[in-house]
Amino acid sequence: MPEQDNPAVSPTARGLDPRALAYTASLPFDRRLYKYDIAVSIAHARMLSRQGIIAAEDAQAIIHGLEEIYKEMDEGDVFFAAEMEDIHMAIEGRLREKIGEAAGSLHTARSRNDQIATDMRLFVMDACGSAVRAIRRLQSSLLDMAETNIDVAIPGYTHLQRAQPLLLAHHLLAYFEMLERDAGRLADCRRRADVCPLGAGALAGVPYPIDRESVARDLGFSCISANSVDAVADRDFVVEFQAVAALIMMHLSRLAEEIILWSSAEFAFFELPREFATGSSIMPQKGNPDVAELARAKTGRVYGNLIAILTMLKGLPLAYNRDLQEDKEPLFDTVDTVMASLDTMAAMLLALRVNRERAEAAAAASYTLATDVADYLVGKGLPFRTAHQVVADLVRHAQGQGKALSALSLEEYRRFSPLFEKDVLTIDVPTALAARDVPGGTAPKRVAAALKQARQRLEESKFSI
Amino acid sequence: MPEQDNPAVSPTARGLDPRALAYTASLPFDRRLYKYDIAVSIAHARMLSRQGIIAAEDAQAIIHGLEEIYKEMDEGDVFFAAEMEDIHMAIEGRLREKIGEAAGSLHTARSRNDQIATDMRLFVMDACGSAVRAIRRLQSSLLDMAETNIDVAIPGYTHLQRAQPLLLAHHLLAYFEMLERDAGRLADCRRRADVCPLGAGALAGVPYPIDRESVARDLGFSCISANSVDAVADRDFVVEFQAVAALIMMHLSRLAEEIILWSSAEFAFFELPREFATGSSIMPQKGNPDVAELARAKTGRVYGNLIAILTMLKGLPLAYNRDLQEDKEPLFDTVDTVMASLDTMAAMLLALRVNRERAEAAAAASYTLATDVADYLVGKGLPFRTAHQVVADLVRHAQGQGKALSALSLEEYRRFSPLFEKDVLTIDVPTALAARDVPGGTAPKRVAAALKQARQRLEESKFSI
Amino acid sequence: MPEQDNPAVSPTARGLDPRALAYTASLPFDRRLYKYDIAVSIAHARMLSRQGIIAAEDAQAIIHGLEEIYKEMDEGDVFFAAEMEDIHMAIEGRLREKIGEAAGSLHTARSRNDQIATDMRLFVMDACGSAVRAIRRLQSSLLDMAETNIDVAIPGYTHLQRAQPLLLAHHLLAYFEMLERDAGRLADCRRRADVCPLGAGALAGVPYPIDRESVARDLGFSCISANSVDAVADRDFVVEFQAVAALIMMHLSRLAEEIILWSSAEFAFFELPREFATGSSIMPQKGNPDVAELARAKTGRVYGNLIAILTMLKGLPLAYNRDLQEDKEPLFDTVDTVMASLDTMAAMLLALRVNRERAEAAAAASYTLATDVADYLVGKGLPFRTAHQVVADLVRHAQGQGKALSALSLEEYRRFSPLFEKDVLTIDVPTALAARDVPGGTAPKRVAAALKQARQRLEESKFSI
Amino acid sequence: MPEQDNPAVSPTARGLDPRALAYTASLPFDRRLYKYDIAVSIAHARMLSRQGIIAAEDAQAIIHGLEEIYKEMDEGDVFFAAEMEDIHMAIEGRLREKIGEAAGSLHTARSRNDQIATDMRLFVMDACGSAVRAIRRLQSSLLDMAETNIDVAIPGYTHLQRAQPLLLAHHLLAYFEMLERDAGRLADCRRRADVCPLGAGALAGVPYPIDRESVARDLGFSCISANSVDAVADRDFVVEFQAVAALIMMHLSRLAEEIILWSSAEFAFFELPREFATGSSIMPQKGNPDVAELARAKTGRVYGNLIAILTMLKGLPLAYNRDLQEDKEPLFDTVDTVMASLDTMAAMLLALRVNRERAEAAAAASYTLATDVADYLVGKGLPFRTAHQVVADLVRHAQGQGKALSALSLEEYRRFSPLFEKDVLTIDVPTALAARDVPGGTAPKRVAAALKQARQRLEESKFSI
Repeated sequence: MPEQDNPAVSPTARGLDPRALAYTASLPFDRRLYKYDIAVSIAHARMLSRQGIIAAEDAQAIIHGLEEIYKEMDEGDVFFAAEMEDIHMAIEGRLREKIGEAAGSLHTARSRNDQIATDMRLFVMDACGSAVRAIRRLQSSLLDMAETNIDVAIPGYTHLQRAQPLLLAHHLLAYFEMLERDAGRLADCRRRADVCPLGAGALAGVPYPIDRESVARDLGFSCISANSVDAVADRDFVVEFQAVAALIMMHLSRLAEEIILWSSAEFAFFELPREFATGSSIMPQKGNPDVAELARAKTGRVYGNLIAILTMLKGLPLAYNRDLQEDKEPLFDTVDTVMASLDTMAAMLLALRVNRERAEAAAAASYTLATDVADYLVGKGLPFRTAHQVVADLVRHAQGQGKALSALSLEEYRRFSPLFEKDVLTIDVPTALAARDVPGGTAPKRVAAALKQARQRLEESKFSI
Repeated sequence: MPEQDNPAVSPTARGLDPRALAYTASLPFDRRLYKYDIAVSIAHARMLSRQGIIAAEDAQAIIHGLEEIYKEMDEGDVFFAAEMEDIHMAIEGRLREKIGEAAGSLHTARSRNDQIATDMRLFVMDACGSAVRAIRRLQSSLLDMAETNIDVAIPGYTHLQRAQPLLLAHHLLAYFEMLERDAGRLADCRRRADVCPLGAGALAGVPYPIDRESVARDLGFSCISANSVDAVADRDFVVEFQAVAALIMMHLSRLAEEIILWSSAEFAFFELPREFATGSSIMPQKGNPDVAELARAKTGRVYGNLIAILTMLKGLPLAYNRDLQEDKEPLFDTVDTVMASLDTMAAMLLALRVNRERAEAAAAASYTLATDVADYLVGKGLPFRTAHQVVADLVRHAQGQGKALSALSLEEYRRFSPLFEKDVLTIDVPTALAARDVPGGTAPKRVAAALKQARQRLEESKFSI
Repeated sequence: MPEQDNPAVSPTARGLDPRALAYTASLPFDRRLYKYDIAVSIAHARMLSRQGIIAAEDAQAIIHGLEEIYKEMDEGDVFFAAEMEDIHMAIEGRLREKIGEAAGSLHTARSRNDQIATDMRLFVMDACGSAVRAIRRLQSSLLDMAETNIDVAIPGYTHLQRAQPLLLAHHLLAYFEMLERDAGRLADCRRRADVCPLGAGALAGVPYPIDRESVARDLGFSCISANSVDAVADRDFVVEFQAVAALIMMHLSRLAEEIILWSSAEFAFFELPREFATGSSIMPQKGNPDVAELARAKTGRVYGNLIAILTMLKGLPLAYNRDLQEDKEPLFDTVDTVMASLDTMAAMLLALRVNRERAEAAAAASYTLATDVADYLVGKGLPFRTAHQVVADLVRHAQGQGKALSALSLEEYRRFSPLFEKDVLTIDVPTALAARDVPGGTAPKRVAAALKQARQRLEESKFSI
Repeated sequence: MPEQDNPAVSPTARGLDPRALAYTASLPFDRRLYKYDIAVSIAHARMLSRQGIIAAEDAQAIIHGLEEIYKEMDEGDVFFAAEMEDIHMAIEGRLREKIGEAAGSLHTARSRNDQIATDMRLFVMDACGSAVRAIRRLQSSLLDMAETNIDVAIPGYTHLQRAQPLLLAHHLLAYFEMLERDAGRLADCRRRADVCPLGAGALAGVPYPIDRESVARDLGFSCISANSVDAVADRDFVVEFQAVAALIMMHLSRLAEEIILWSSAEFAFFELPREFATGSSIMPQKGNPDVAELARAKTGRVYGNLIAILTMLKGLPLAYNRDLQEDKEPLFDTVDTVMASLDTMAAMLLALRVNRERAEAAAAASYTLATDVADYLVGKGLPFRTAHQVVADLVRHAQGQGKALSALSLEEYRRFSPLFEKDVLTIDVPTALAARDVPGGTAPKRVAAALKQARQRLEESKFSI
């Protein structure tokens, strides 16, 4: 059989050197898009028939055939030869096996250029939705953990030095906020992806009386693209997803870092249960925070995937270039990485045990109340900068004595300023926490309100993407 | 004079090893933020006074002093010793020179941690606005160029091979769309930056009865941050700006690439006027597209700046770490690069001369009408895939003869399919253009409408950020 | 059966939450290292026996068992449960099935930390060798192409503007040089990878009288690592490979860009044969340079892989962290990408047809000989800068007339300088080429010698890595 | 004065739109190369004179003038108008002011393309040398610190969990090794940069009887470039420097991370002296490790600079393009960042105080000797995997009792294995350290020898780059 008629070779790949075919074929990975590709083809065929561009019975046969192929692929029992080049040609080839020549009408008034752009946009829209839902699950774990430990104090850190006491719940809510922004960025990304490029053809539009709006509606798009050249050349929506994902992973890497630190023997604020602590092949005592380490590490691959697509697009002339095929593997990898990282972290958080004693002892140590003593002096009328200097000297004195501030006598205090009175001795972690009674502050009643509001936001978000 | 009292050394920098100070000082670059920093301090002092936290007369002195410093810096005649460490301490130091001890009250109920976060957010909000305005100017140049050349045809390219004819105006509108998305992303970025962190203090909130809402309003913020730890640890808004900027530069790199290509002797669709073509130090005939080359190249530094901040934030525990200081120089560099690139490209576009003859000759050559011939056969009833094969054979025949399709006789056409009739010979660039009469297509009337609509969108955008 | 004794679960993974196991298991990808892992284990077992650390008969059983596993895996018929966690535990588990309890002695005096470092170094050393060989094949293609077209002139470009004539062979030799540096960097990378970490144990060394030198020798290493902490924490060799690969891909992207440009209708210096030109799904006339486009695009994924590992390693405390597991997938992807890109480009180069007429016409056009005219005036005594200005004016005159320099009369020349004499009219492409008779210049005899020398270097390189 | 003759405007910039000039001018940053540029011009002029290409008296005037300009610039009192475009034209312009028309001969037989490539290579060669010397200083600090604390034990970490005891000196030597590889990579980078491109002209070589070898020798190069096109298009040496610098910064980020961790209240193995601990603007007690934090953070900008140049070079056709100008600022920034980071870290290390009590208490805690107990059982004949399981159970038992292993009685030990005998109770940190008596292990005598050898290597390295 001459290769030209060999149905197992994509017509666009005929005559290709096998090395060139192996290098250029995308079927091994774009196969993942089959659901979108078939949905797009069905909507397209329906419209072609409605508009009288192809015969109704051909459209029927095409749609029926595609539905069968969808089912076959869903069940996983379809083999495609690599010679089919890509998922579009593979499905068209399979369709031809099923319905014969009529399959050749499906590609009327479209091109693989607008087809793949449509598939990819649907994929990204779905990925945005899935990622938002995974974010909601992780936020829920954070709130669970915060609620369970609602009155646990920890030292707040700046520069990894103990700074001022915080409620652990307040600290956890910081991550809730980060993830909230991530969800917002995913919604924005989805909104910009939600534009149907079908009808752009190869790059110039098509010379058929198609109805772009109806196809877009059928596929669940909100609108159609405004310019055919841009429609096939644009991968902004992939870059934007990669950038949003990079931020998500950055946030997870910070959370992971803290879980690793706080599970160390030195901090010991957290205990990793056995289900989330892996062993060592030689050190029998070890229980390692591998999940957190890998979440931290996988940040790298997502950053890398962002650079991959940015590099690929740099300096590319319009409109479609085969370079664009390289948008897929990094995107798939990022989606899988982000989903697994969000979900595994959410599971691990629920399993973490908080060691209240260690955390609260640390919260009170290392002069974390020094700022409160300076603020005390401000209350007595000193300018802040002067008060700061007085307390710095006081702390140095206490350090020299190896004492905590709370172990100093009033006399010792007064050696540094006559403004100190007896009530300075009442400053402790609870008063310091309660004093930060400003919106967004760590005062227990503020945190309780913030937690409640966060839970409510989470409930409401169930109804958005 | 003991260093401790030396007003030329920031109190936070006293006793530092000179190498450590040189390595950590940010004054050489964060000086650029003085306008924001002073505005923030004035709003803060006003609020402290309103709330009775500092004395009204101290607030008066502080505000007056800050206004003077603003004016001095605006006029460029302020010298700061490097020992002042950063812009905050430098301004506080200068204020102390002016008003004495009272300057020490300014830092009540705040920290450099929330202060710098506020400065940076104001800077990014402004940068978003400026970048949108620069985008509008470049879009306007694109529309001017499109309107001036409204009926010029060019070959549309895929894979840098001539594919189908396009109107040049249609091609230019693709860039209008890209920039439109960029403007949308800048608006989203600005919206997320538009949150006032002041009041978060070092990380836990402050123990003073401050009024966060009023300070935020004074500074033009829409809302206040919800969590103090997040407020000082968050640099998402910088990353988001960097990511949006990377996309802008990517778009410019594609436009630049096309200007370079189309100004080459081989394409020659564009002529660079002397004002935008640089000479060679040894080749007397050269006129080089250096502006476009540099716009393309500068994409690299903006990608690099994105990676710089993503790397910096990776794995950073909460809340503030000195690492965050490294958010600034890459951001400033990106803002400057994006602004200069947008504006210089806008100026160059207006100066480009289009060589209509070269463009239109190319649009008609290289079998760019083959798809139209295939579509012709579809109109006669062939399935598209079959028609495609027939025309592929026809083109190969014509290539063998060294003839254009338009130079083939009807007999030659009919040798490949009996469906060809005389009207196939009327297919030419104008009919091909006109045939793509779908929304977003290159048909002249569609392009005219799209141009008009784009101009209108641009007009309306004047009233948004 | 209690999980603790379940041989299908790695002892280090027992009790793990299934989500944690799925997230942390590396077996799906580190399986690729089995050859190295088994070789390492065999060498280790031999040494343990030689040193009397384990019983000779146990060592015998272990080695025999490992050889069987190697054969099984080589033939592809081994299934491992995901619960085996990684390739080390999977192989140890399989060994236990074969030889029972004695398998437990294999892990004496080592850890997975030094084991995986050893596997990875062997993998990188092999990858360096393979990449060098693929570079040699591409260099050979370049030389073949240069030799076949030894006397073809092209325009040399700067700023994508025609600058001065070149021999195509000279231009191709530029790529030979780039690849030569790449090979040098691979050799350096291999040299630094060529250090055996085995014996570092988990991080501190091992408390057994092992003979590190002999194991290293057995495995083909040149030396052993000097510090056990560094030995398990170091992945410099992976970063270095990624960086070298990024440079290789950058070079290929430049070659690819030129193939794309030169295969366009506008340049048309190259013709892509059908075996390396892919078709369009809708445009029957297209023959697209997809191989070159993908080589250019895949540069992005290799840059991304470099960023992935750099990000992963940033700020990682010593010694081993699970983060290091993320070194593998990006490395494997880079090796596969670089190998396929080098080999497919080598194949495509051999198939490219050069269109001498187009190239030589372009070489003579666009005033590419203007520098030679300036140099002519220098020969007559003008300072170069003055000569340059005279010829710039001359070229402007010719452009105004729409004439080539060769079409100007001597009178016209003399209008710009009285130094011009009749011999100026003999300047043409051959004289311009021949004049650049300096080492590294494009004079035909220099190019012929350079080609010969390059071929010889290639021959000699067969005996190095 | 017509602009054409305005000596304050570079001839190559005449007629440029001011926006284009501002966008393209490199003088603000390439001014930094003046030493190299003048040295290159002097060597070039000498050779031109030797070869009889320019008049001896012109060469004399040129060289004398350049020497004056060098002196002027060295003293910092030269102003250049931005209209001079770049350092080459600025210096040639200044030379013309000094010696008139003869200045115009200097640019005979060269181009800015080969000139800037030469300048940049000299710059990179110098930067390699400087960086190696800074590495040596940091290595020396590490050795000083190791020698001072030669017998201090710390817990070695894997996964940030205490793993096995180490000598602090051994741990520090791991960084010595990393830096040693960095120095090796710098030497390799320098070797590949050490190739003189002068004589390549614009891209094709020059039509003058120049002596490339002698110029190269004069400038201190070891050899000349083999291909003129490659010579002007190549920036591998810049990429390679950036990649080596990225590795250096990655190593510093790991060291910085450990200094930050170990200076925290939780670890407290290190105390930061006041000269290297910065204060807080509001928390009087703080002493922050800002130097280490910034070294960690600056890793980001160096990674970013690497991406900047890789992106810039991606897909660039040969030979010279103006894009290459963007190689400079990121390179200068990287050199400055690496030098400052190495030197400031070296200074800080010398100032760090080690808290031996905290470190040694930690080294003995958290069951860090469990591996030794397992190895003890192996010594008694158990296969390692079985011994590992026994000790895992033993540790779990001890944890349940809240006891250290050393607090268990022999009876308790024997409950887990009858192989335990009295000598198991002698296992402690010193025996564990001493047991790791293999090359590269942490046994004190091995570490002492390694330290001595490292010091010697450092001494010897003084005589290489």
